[in-house]
Amino acid sequence: MRLNNLGIVRTNIEFPDPEDVARLSQFGVATIHEAMGRVGLMRPYIRPAYTGAKLCGPAVTVLLQPGDNWMFHVAAEQVREGSVVIAGCTTESEDGFFGELLATSLAARGCTGLVIDGGVRDVADLERMDFPVFSRAINAKGTVKATLGSVNVPVVVANALVNPGDVVVADVDGVVVVPRELVGAVADTSRQREDNEEAKRQKFRAGVLGLDLYGMREPLAAAGLEYVED
Amino acid sequence: MRLNNLGIVRTNIEFPDPEDVARLSQFGVATIHEAMGRVGLMRPYIRPAYTGAKLCGPAVTVLLQPGDNWMFHVAAEQVREGSVVIAGCTTESEDGFFGELLATSLAARGCTGLVIDGGVRDVADLERMDFPVFSRAINAKGTVKATLGSVNVPVVVANALVNPGDVVVADVDGVVVVPRELVGAVADTSRQREDNEEAKRQKFRAGVLGLDLYGMREPLAAAGLEYVED
Amino acid sequence: MRLNNLGIVRTNIEFPDPEDVARLSQFGVATIHEAMGRVGLMRPYIRPAYTGAKLCGPAVTVLLQPGDNWMFHVAAEQVREGSVVIAGCTTESEDGFFGELLATSLAARGCTGLVIDGGVRDVADLERMDFPVFSRAINAKGTVKATLGSVNVPVVVANALVNPGDVVVADVDGVVVVPRELVGAVADTSRQREDNEEAKRQKFRAGVLGLDLYGMREPLAAAGLEYVED
Amino acid sequence: MRLNNLGIVRTNIEFPDPEDVARLSQFGVATIHEAMGRVGLMRPYIRPAYTGAKLCGPAVTVLLQPGDNWMFHVAAEQVREGSVVIAGCTTESEDGFFGELLATSLAARGCTGLVIDGGVRDVADLERMDFPVFSRAINAKGTVKATLGSVNVPVVVANALVNPGDVVVADVDGVVVVPRELVGAVADTSRQREDNEEAKRQKFRAGVLGLDLYGMREPLAAAGLEYVED
Amino acid sequence: MRLNNLGIVRTNIEFPDPEDVARLSQFGVATIHEAMGRVGLMRPYIRPAYTGAKLCGPAVTVLLQPGDNWMFHVAAEQVREGSVVIAGCTTESEDGFFGELLATSLAARGCTGLVIDGGVRDVADLERMDFPVFSRAINAKGTVKATLGSVNVPVVVANALVNPGDVVVADVDGVVVVPRELVGAVADTSRQREDNEEAKRQKFRAGVLGLDLYGMREPLAAAGLEYVED
Amino acid sequence: MRLNNLGIVRTNIEFPDPEDVARLSQFGVATIHEAMGRVGLMRPYIRPAYTGAKLCGPAVTVLLQPGDNWMFHVAAEQVREGSVVIAGCTTESEDGFFGELLATSLAARGCTGLVIDGGVRDVADLERMDFPVFSRAINAKGTVKATLGSVNVPVVVANALVNPGDVVVADVDGVVVVPRELVGAVADTSRQREDNEEAKRQKFRAGVLGLDLYGMREPLAAAGLEYVED
Repeated sequence: MRLNNLGIVRTNIEFPDPEDVARLSQFGVATIHEAMGRVGLMRPYIRPAYTGAKLCGPAVTVLLQPGDNWMFHVAAEQVREGSVVIAGCTTESEDGFFGELLATSLAARGCTGLVIDGGVRDVADLERMDFPVFSRAINAKGTVKATLGSVNVPVVVANALVNPGDVVVADVDGVVVVPRELVGAVADTSRQREDNEEAKRQKFRAGVLGLDLYGMREPLAAAGLEYVED
Repeated sequence: MRLNNLGIVRTNIEFPDPEDVARLSQFGVATIHEAMGRVGLMRPYIRPAYTGAKLCGPAVTVLLQPGDNWMFHVAAEQVREGSVVIAGCTTESEDGFFGELLATSLAARGCTGLVIDGGVRDVADLERMDFPVFSRAINAKGTVKATLGSVNVPVVVANALVNPGDVVVADVDGVVVVPRELVGAVADTSRQREDNEEAKRQKFRAGVLGLDLYGMREPLAAAGLEYVED
Repeated sequence: MRLNNLGIVRTNIEFPDPEDVARLSQFGVATIHEAMGRVGLMRPYIRPAYTGAKLCGPAVTVLLQPGDNWMFHVAAEQVREGSVVIAGCTTESEDGFFGELLATSLAARGCTGLVIDGGVRDVADLERMDFPVFSRAINAKGTVKATLGSVNVPVVVANALVNPGDVVVADVDGVVVVPRELVGAVADTSRQREDNEEAKRQKFRAGVLGLDLYGMREPLAAAGLEYVED
Repeated sequence: MRLNNLGIVRTNIEFPDPEDVARLSQFGVATIHEAMGRVGLMRPYIRPAYTGAKLCGPAVTVLLQPGDNWMFHVAAEQVREGSVVIAGCTTESEDGFFGELLATSLAARGCTGLVIDGGVRDVADLERMDFPVFSRAINAKGTVKATLGSVNVPVVVANALVNPGDVVVADVDGVVVVPRELVGAVADTSRQREDNEEAKRQKFRAGVLGLDLYGMREPLAAAGLEYVED
Repeated sequence: MRLNNLGIVRTNIEFPDPEDVARLSQFGVATIHEAMGRVGLMRPYIRPAYTGAKLCGPAVTVLLQPGDNWMFHVAAEQVREGSVVIAGCTTESEDGFFGELLATSLAARGCTGLVIDGGVRDVADLERMDFPVFSRAINAKGTVKATLGSVNVPVVVANALVNPGDVVVADVDGVVVVPRELVGAVADTSRQREDNEEAKRQKFRAGVLGLDLYGMREPLAAAGLEYVED
Repeated sequence: MRLNNLGIVRTNIEFPDPEDVARLSQFGVATIHEAMGRVGLMRPYIRPAYTGAKLCGPAVTVLLQPGDNWMFHVAAEQVREGSVVIAGCTTESEDGFFGELLATSLAARGCTGLVIDGGVRDVADLERMDFPVFSRAINAKGTVKATLGSVNVPVVVANALVNPGDVVVADVDGVVVVPRELVGAVADTSRQREDNEEAKRQKFRAGVLGLDLYGMREPLAAAGLEYVED
């Protein structure tokens, strides 16, 4: 009996409908997270490696051993057009697992970005290449290629569970994971939410108060809010 | 289509064989983690709330909303003799979700400890009651009971995935999660590992060097290690 | 016009009724914090310097400059029997501002403990003397005596405002500040809260569920909680 | 007797002279902080949400409960032309309390920025709107509207006390609080300081050493500084 | 016998060959760190104070006391054309040791940047002046000039040992220290490494996999990597 | 030309006079640190792995690669009676590099404790064995034995430089490094300091104020300290 999920490459993962992914890519992380009922968010310590980085795509997952980036080369063979690589680590590590050469290899195979619960380097090159990366650290320290992790197994990244084929969306507000089978539904709900927000935005711009727009005056009074003139 | 896993209580989860759990409880976290091939460990920021706390049992899982401990009361009905409660949170929170009254309630229902990716309070009482708790913070700040989480859904706690019925082991070295179907096998492997270590321990005590015991001199030399007399 | 509150010693501060302080000292930090409506808590990074430290008393406040402990000597003249010293710093500093000699001096003048938003040292001696200290760090690094702070001005300590004469209570759960004029009222409310909790505790011990004790089943159902048998 | 300051809206706070605020707005945070004698600075973990954010205005204060942004809507009615919103929280929280819709509402009512001891989201939108925000975190995770805080009570934000009507200045160097009654005096002192610095700047540019400009050679020698040629 | 290295200015330090420094300055931190065999890197908490900051030059070292920047004025006399100032502190401090006036003075004497294991301020001015600074914090809080440190003694900065005359290179990826006597050799090795990488980059761009380029398929299989089709 | 100090074991290091070490071992870290003029202290994030841990001895140094503990076995051959092992790492790592088996081996060879800028495990066993350990983390996660570090080269540990043969002293207040050639002199100065403090301690116990004992009233007044009666 296998006691762990190390040393495995799943080659045949299912990806969501590309049109659903395209529709989802129109929305920001905060909107999508709300649309899902506020689940699926990675911890906020994952930050863009450079200003303006954004990505949205189905996940090829990588499970790394600390200080070892061997599995990225295995993953490069598994990426497809439009996919993103989502890398977790079996323990906390801020080493620089990923840099410009790997980005060149992944980009050449169609991959459009990386989220990693570890460190990255060559950040000026990544920005020049326009290869978006989200990480827990920036660190010039390199890694070895010595121990097996896995590709396309479920990984936990910054406390969020990512299955291969789930869609990951990342922007300045953070990183959110949308389960593969929900991508279309979440895109729909995000659209409704944005439409609904646009109506509110117009009202707010005109100076209407949320107190009135949302009918909050009564519940606030019921909760005991007291206006004091001094 | 359900967009998230909030507002659910699974009442019928499967637990592992109690004898396997008992066998597993003889081993420390470091041994078990090694026996599993070095996966399943929570991030090391989860620490015992008091010195000497230890636990081992099948998980009743709780998914909390930040600053809201309502679900612990729902979980109290689901715990069974010997189980432990493992609580994740949909976002980072260090509020004091759990204290002595809840511990009294859980203990009365057979629960033997708590691991929580959040804060706890009444720590002196918890120690007096001998109710082991592992948490990310100690914090007197209380919580509300206003929003639904879930009980017995998969939760991510300090970056580790915990399914209900998985066995969680915690001691001063950290917290490790053993998948339900692997408990017996991991107990076996842990036993072999400990037996194997006892032999080495005797040798080390007698002054034998790891260099000789493990035959490291040759690979070290091959890697280029140089002894310098100055 | 004075542009800041540095270089001042207020010699004539008002202290609360000692009987009220004595009554308050029976309760833990979590209870008092609840009794006040959940305000007045210091940030949880302030921790006891040794296991078992506890204190409760009216505050003599000290405003320190980073890396400078001169004002503790000024404060030593201002402490009274049963008071505690509460020290903030004009910026973040983890230097060891306080050690055994200062504790000896303060204890000889009647002071019964210290809370400091900085570092302390001689921790083994402090434990031996039974002089309770709560701090943000333990650090052997000493400080100078060169720049003026103040004594008995309002200070902000770990994000809580402390006025001289306010009562500060600290235990393993954290540190809470009770405004001077509320000490009696908070002691009363704490007593009611504890009495109320004892009744609940008995019920929980007997296995009654919070779901029933608090009448939660209906609001949980109304919020949409769903029990699933699989 | 009121045990805390929750559930209050003060509607009639005093603001400083707008000309004094305008004069103060010409100076950076470091200069103002020096002019005040080095007090009033928030802890440096408060950072601009986007590059180039700057603000200066009288404070409308908000006291939040963790994970609850209800009070921002109450505050929106209290803001005035040129004011800024300064939000503290009763405990540490990194949730995303604030985003683009609230910014739209506040901006429509005349508010010119936000400082919050919590998280914010929709950061790309905030930058596009040029609505400056300073926060302890960026986090897509939303909040509820369920528990009362207060508006225009004194709040502690990142360890600095802010009274409503105090002027808050924020830029890349940090955030400083100027008490309402000192705004004019601090603007004067800041001006003197800048004039004084300009003279020094010219000397430094010409290569004059601080050792000579400030007459430091003698005190350094007196303190024992030793030049060693090897 | 001198018990420490405080109060010393070494005036006669040796600098590396300027041509070697110029050659080294063509390479990024990650490349140089690899070329040295992965030593000499500062801890990754040292970050550029503004986007795009970069520096490379021989070190004039400064040992600071916490909250005291006196030694920078002593160092200003010791800097030479093209040198950089590298400042360590005898304990952890995030105070703002350095700002625009000091930068003006150092720049006028030929210094081309600063790395400091402490805080800095006037960051907008530093960016405007194009004076690159790498620091552990940005903090408006100023310092005093009261206690002796040293200039041109060995300092430990963010866990890296820096001797005066060593060349320090800093960019977005971090900060690396090259011992004075190795500058030429490290520049050579960096050049070889970059040339070697360019060849690989072409292959990766053409879609060749690292698995094939590096001959990894066999060792991965030997380590037990398993491809699973599901 | 060697570009780094990896792959080296120095076998012939000089140790200080054991009588000097014995004299030094009578003093705490804070006293020794003061006696040296406040240098040589490690960063305060290094903490005892269990309550009451203390050590003092000449250093056998180990330079580790992240996640790799091979060099401890090499070091085991180099330790001598009464020495301590001081381990730095070429980058930040919180892995569990060290546990009970290695402690057994080191103890059998005469080593009396460990300071490590990394993680350790088997902490309950280490306490039972009374083998004192000071570390930056407790972490069950194990390491590999694959890459060369060094033994008895200079290492930087938590920002302090340690040469082999330097004496390292650690207790609850922190960790201090005494250069080999200064051990006797520092023991002497520590003794004078303690004698001097005992006289002060008696005075403080009798209620004498530091204001009078140190003659501080005049300089405080000169600095502008103002006593206010209100």
